Amino acid sequence: MATPAEPVKPGAAPRHIRLTSHAGGYGALPIHWGAATAAERGPVVGTTTQRSHRNVIGTHSGSYSVYRALAVAAGALSRHHKADLTNTAPTDIIGPYPQWSDPSKIVSLDPWGATVANVFESELAAGYDIRPTIAVTQAHVILPEVIEGLQKGRLQADGTVLTAGGAAMVTKAAIEPVWWLPGVAARFGCSENDLRRVLFEETGGMYPELVTRSDLEVFLPPIGGQTLYIFGNPRDLANPEVELTARVHDECNGSDVFGSDICTCRPYLTHAIEECIQGAQRGGVGLVAYSRKEGRALGEVTKFLVYNARKRQVGGDTADQYFARTECVAGVQDMRFQELMPDVLHWLGIKKIHRLVSMSNMKFDAITQSGIEIGTRVNIPDELIPADARVEMDAKVAAGYFSTGPVPDAEELRKPKGRELT
Amino acid sequence: MATPAEPVKPGAAPRHIRLTSHAGGYGALPIHWGAATAAERGPVVGTTTQRSHRNVIGTHSGSYSVYRALAVAAGALSRHHKADLTNTAPTDIIGPYPQWSDPSKIVSLDPWGATVANVFESELAAGYDIRPTIAVTQAHVILPEVIEGLQKGRLQADGTVLTAGGAAMVTKAAIEPVWWLPGVAARFGCSENDLRRVLFEETGGMYPELVTRSDLEVFLPPIGGQTLYIFGNPRDLANPEVELTARVHDECNGSDVFGSDICTCRPYLTHAIEECIQGAQRGGVGLVAYSRKEGRALGEVTKFLVYNARKRQVGGDTADQYFARTECVAGVQDMRFQELMPDVLHWLGIKKIHRLVSMSNMKFDAITQSGIEIGTRVNIPDELIPADARVEMDAKVAAGYFSTGPVPDAEELRKPKGRELT
Repeated sequence: MATPAEPVKPGAAPRHIRLTSHAGGYGALPIHWGAATAAERGPVVGTTTQRSHRNVIGTHSGSYSVYRALAVAAGALSRHHKADLTNTAPTDIIGPYPQWSDPSKIVSLDPWGATVANVFESELAAGYDIRPTIAVTQAHVILPEVIEGLQKGRLQADGTVLTAGGAAMVTKAAIEPVWWLPGVAARFGCSENDLRRVLFEETGGMYPELVTRSDLEVFLPPIGGQTLYIFGNPRDLANPEVELTARVHDECNGSDVFGSDICTCRPYLTHAIEECIQGAQRGGVGLVAYSRKEGRALGEVTKFLVYNARKRQVGGDTADQYFARTECVAGVQDMRFQELMPDVLHWLGIKKIHRLVSMSNMKFDAITQSGIEIGTRVNIPDELIPADARVEMDAKVAAGYFSTGPVPDAEELRKPKGRELT
Repeated sequence: MATPAEPVKPGAAPRHIRLTSHAGGYGALPIHWGAATAAERGPVVGTTTQRSHRNVIGTHSGSYSVYRALAVAAGALSRHHKADLTNTAPTDIIGPYPQWSDPSKIVSLDPWGATVANVFESELAAGYDIRPTIAVTQAHVILPEVIEGLQKGRLQADGTVLTAGGAAMVTKAAIEPVWWLPGVAARFGCSENDLRRVLFEETGGMYPELVTRSDLEVFLPPIGGQTLYIFGNPRDLANPEVELTARVHDECNGSDVFGSDICTCRPYLTHAIEECIQGAQRGGVGLVAYSRKEGRALGEVTKFLVYNARKRQVGGDTADQYFARTECVAGVQDMRFQELMPDVLHWLGIKKIHRLVSMSNMKFDAITQSGIEIGTRVNIPDELIPADARVEMDAKVAAGYFSTGPVPDAEELRKPKGRELT
């Protein structure tokens, strides 16, 4: 695959197209997943510029790689462009932590992804196009719910964690998915071969290298990543003596952005942010990990189809049919697969979460089974649950969600509590 | 590709893997893009269950198809599952409109995607696995900024468009991307062959059928889609006599959800929602079209790298270097490509936008060049611009953004107005 890349020139003589790649090309650096140092692990090279250097399946930027391709097609971007990483280094140092060199702890992100300009300096100098898969910066975040918390006395400004104007000081990190396929397969209890084959076949034939290139163990899938918001000192996350308040939150655009009242997503998220602020002000540290898994990773079209089926079913919108309606449309209740979620906690060096702001038994199980201790769980305050979200809350509590209140019985679950369509 | 699909059974004898598909298989229905009726157009079949029925490249659910594959790998989902579409039909009828049968007006979504259970009833009965690519439902959305608007008297409750509790009544639609490749290529001014090749090569080899199957003209790319929020009667969108207030908004998770103060995204979005509510209360209709194009479709990792480069550059965070910093890291200033954005407006039958709540010249140009008239443009009120977002606003206004205020000169653009990193 050493064909030199050329810009697309409409009308130019066609270059030879290579439909697949083969092992044994020259120039690709090996990846030893879970090695103790960056030098031994080797860089993840997903470049499309010098294909002989590639040591992964797929490419960077998750699903935005498709937009990058459009930019080349439109003539707006040179396919030879290499990122100038001047001044982009992380604002805060994360790790390295012992978990980084345990290949069972992290399988879905590259722990060295934030510091490539530093740890792979010599490989970059040698001409390898190594791109960060993680970026760390600082921000001031201003949420109307936090301003309300200040006004009502739930929160106090201290000028450090929270300003009088309602701005919370955070370190934030964006993380792209980097999957080590043997480890991902182990998490899901299937063989690596089965995983590769299903990823290929059930996406309608995405990346044949998944099945032809068993020598390539790392896959950069075209999916959304995650974003971390850290309140307090990021180094404290790895110290189990410092109180850690954390929420792992899965995207729900309809509530998180638009405030739809059919679920508790944004109210629970902003409650968690208030808890994180208070925790940091007590001398602890706070974390919100936000994952792009819209509608239980079923996507928003499926989610809205399910809403309609729930609202129109005979008997009304009831908790006892809540999961069944999703399963009818999607075939499963949930595709979020919390099995991969704890990776980011291990990247941060976390050993103990003192206060987990989540009622999800699936998240609780995934975190504790990955070896992280959880102290107490913080449920969403009742007054923050919108009326139309009661169906979801009842159904989840009945199915095993953590709750300090009563678990609804069968009769309670059969009561239509959701609003009908108009 | 007539191999019957089988569930993955770990340890079972391996089935034959087909690495690519070939034209001329039996059973696939033709797609005549832009045909006048659904029957003539034909259904989009992206199923992975009966591969001989497929008439597209890629599969459903955008990037969530990867999670669907994981569900099969984990044994949680049968690969034979077919969606039960009972009660999922749209709550509101959209179209058909004359624009649906103009193949130059809509190239990136399937106008018949919401009503497949109805318009392709006989094909579904014949065993084709046809899935909706659009879902339409109704919701109550409650935003703290709208509640504040009620409290401060900017907004009035009427019980119809807006309740006294601050809930706005909306019809909302989720839309997955469905690309007709000849039309997409035309929008970007390149040949279909070049587009197919670049989509394949610049994604690191995603979907070889892009280059091997020129008979398949439709591609379901693994990217995020869009969501529409409609205030008032959706049928009024197509009536140019009814005042339409509209914003086309591109995702910015850091501001839209978390309220980061480095840009104006959420303040402008919530301002647009207030404008939509007021417009609907005047007897008009409002629309917010939300596209998953995080960080100008560069993704959030690139966005955060650029933030760091801006804040650390010699001379501080200045408007005159605003676009240059993005270009250094990403190779382009922007990858959102507003060329495809107007499709959704044509799907809604829109001919005139009376009040466009956007200052973007790129969005304005794309909409008007697609044949939709724009009346006035509504800028973001000055008091809603966070202090640290002044750099972005100055840079954009200097680059051609609509503004009612003064355009900053070269000296003004060189002043560091952004906050430094701590």
